[in-house]
Amino acid sequence: MELEFLQWLRGQVPENPLLSLGLSDDAAVLSLAGRADLVVTTDLLSEGVDFELAVNDPRQIGRKAIAVNLSDLAAMAARPLAALASIAIPRRPANGQSSLELAIAIYEGLLLLAKEFDVAIAGGDTNTHDGPLVINITAIGQVTNRGPLTRSGGRPGDWLLVTSVLGGSILGHHYDFTPRVRESLLLHQKYNLHAGMDLSDGLAIDLARLAVASNCGAVTYVDRLPIAPGAWELAQREAPDRTEDLAVIARQHALGDGEDFELLLTAPPDVARTILQDQPVSCGITHV
Amino acid sequence: MELEFLQWLRGQVPENPLLSLGLSDDAAVLSLAGRADLVVTTDLLSEGVDFELAVNDPRQIGRKAIAVNLSDLAAMAARPLAALASIAIPRRPANGQSSLELAIAIYEGLLLLAKEFDVAIAGGDTNTHDGPLVINITAIGQVTNRGPLTRSGGRPGDWLLVTSVLGGSILGHHYDFTPRVRESLLLHQKYNLHAGMDLSDGLAIDLARLAVASNCGAVTYVDRLPIAPGAWELAQREAPDRTEDLAVIARQHALGDGEDFELLLTAPPDVARTILQDQPVSCGITHV
Repeated sequence: MELEFLQWLRGQVPENPLLSLGLSDDAAVLSLAGRADLVVTTDLLSEGVDFELAVNDPRQIGRKAIAVNLSDLAAMAARPLAALASIAIPRRPANGQSSLELAIAIYEGLLLLAKEFDVAIAGGDTNTHDGPLVINITAIGQVTNRGPLTRSGGRPGDWLLVTSVLGGSILGHHYDFTPRVRESLLLHQKYNLHAGMDLSDGLAIDLARLAVASNCGAVTYVDRLPIAPGAWELAQREAPDRTEDLAVIARQHALGDGEDFELLLTAPPDVARTILQDQPVSCGITHV
Repeated sequence: MELEFLQWLRGQVPENPLLSLGLSDDAAVLSLAGRADLVVTTDLLSEGVDFELAVNDPRQIGRKAIAVNLSDLAAMAARPLAALASIAIPRRPANGQSSLELAIAIYEGLLLLAKEFDVAIAGGDTNTHDGPLVINITAIGQVTNRGPLTRSGGRPGDWLLVTSVLGGSILGHHYDFTPRVRESLLLHQKYNLHAGMDLSDGLAIDLARLAVASNCGAVTYVDRLPIAPGAWELAQREAPDRTEDLAVIARQHALGDGEDFELLLTAPPDVARTILQDQPVSCGITHV
């Protein structure tokens, strides 16, 4: 099925000026002469661990596989350039599709997001095997003239900011989230941010990581957490007859749920105040 | 097991000046300012398809996973810079090791070759799952001032050259082969090569690919093929009592067997003659 799939793929991957040779050689050439440092990241998603093929639309799975990598680039305030996608396809997929149909559906989701963020598909390897679906994406981005945004730049006294709303991602947002690439580039360009990362394991865990990397402590005001509709919905399901506890439970979800893929940023108080006043990103940004 | 594994890994991966941040952030930064174009490639190996965990030493599997990628960089005459390694580890590995022991053994093989070729490990993702072992490596290399060596540069009249000897790789060479990185860089730097690729599916198939990419026909002199000891051994096993056919069978292996990971190069006759006379690489080079 590999050859048929490659044939299909060649017609689908748009030409990209970054790829001077196209995809016909042993490896792809990225034309970067004179450009700035690169940022590289890789993520592997496995059926049964990160998704269920019997439940999830393979287009969503493909989209998510690249989205989590773009979120890692956003975490570093890097402009996405290229991605390489490897897929181990089950010989008999659990959703009843053929291996080829499944590979194509995954790529359809993946290519849609790649197109939205102008990411060149710079290579890949698609093989069938007797096992679950495994997708690995490596994404390559470029640091802007402001340098990379890191976890270790936080300073005592910095304010903590998060984009959009948190929690309850499990209800669907962990598939349809938009990686905060544009927001990160804009904020890093316009304001003097100190540190940043993306929220993949929940604010509580990830903030601890950022604090350790920055050699700081960190305080969150839980009453200020921007709570996602999904977090409220989970709270209502868990305590339908305890309306007085809803806010507490929803906050716990906003604090603890993984896969928000929002940005956690630190900035000195004056900069943070300006950002909060300007509200320069349409997804919103909150002081926590 | 991921956290324990990461802990082990942090102690193993040597510092590399290319990685300005180390491996503590969401993604790695490759410091490339002002350098030349990049070459990127990715390969996925699956248990049951590309190797058998019950048979093969996991160190060998890890070594091979990165070696095939370095061979792809060699095919383009690119200098290896960095690699990202993703591994889906079975919860109960078929060789009786624990998931952690297996992940470590794979990395030990991988790191040994990375060290030999000064390749920075720029990231990775290691997860356990209920499925076979899957390893994906993405390798990033840098084009030299001579530009990339491509499949499409062959011209009518070019001579065909191959490094070392061919065939019978299945007897073990497909694990312990040395990717022809140094040879490719030296030959591309010193001589005016027209085209090149690595032999992964056998000379017969791969030469056809190079010829198509170069818009040429191609002729091989089968009596000139450099036959590997493994190809002779296979011939002897297959026809122990037909000594008169041994050379023919061995040649068929040299022509058809996959996973030689040698270089197939084309050069104009005068250049090819000089190379053959100079014999500048210790593995040898032959006109085919």
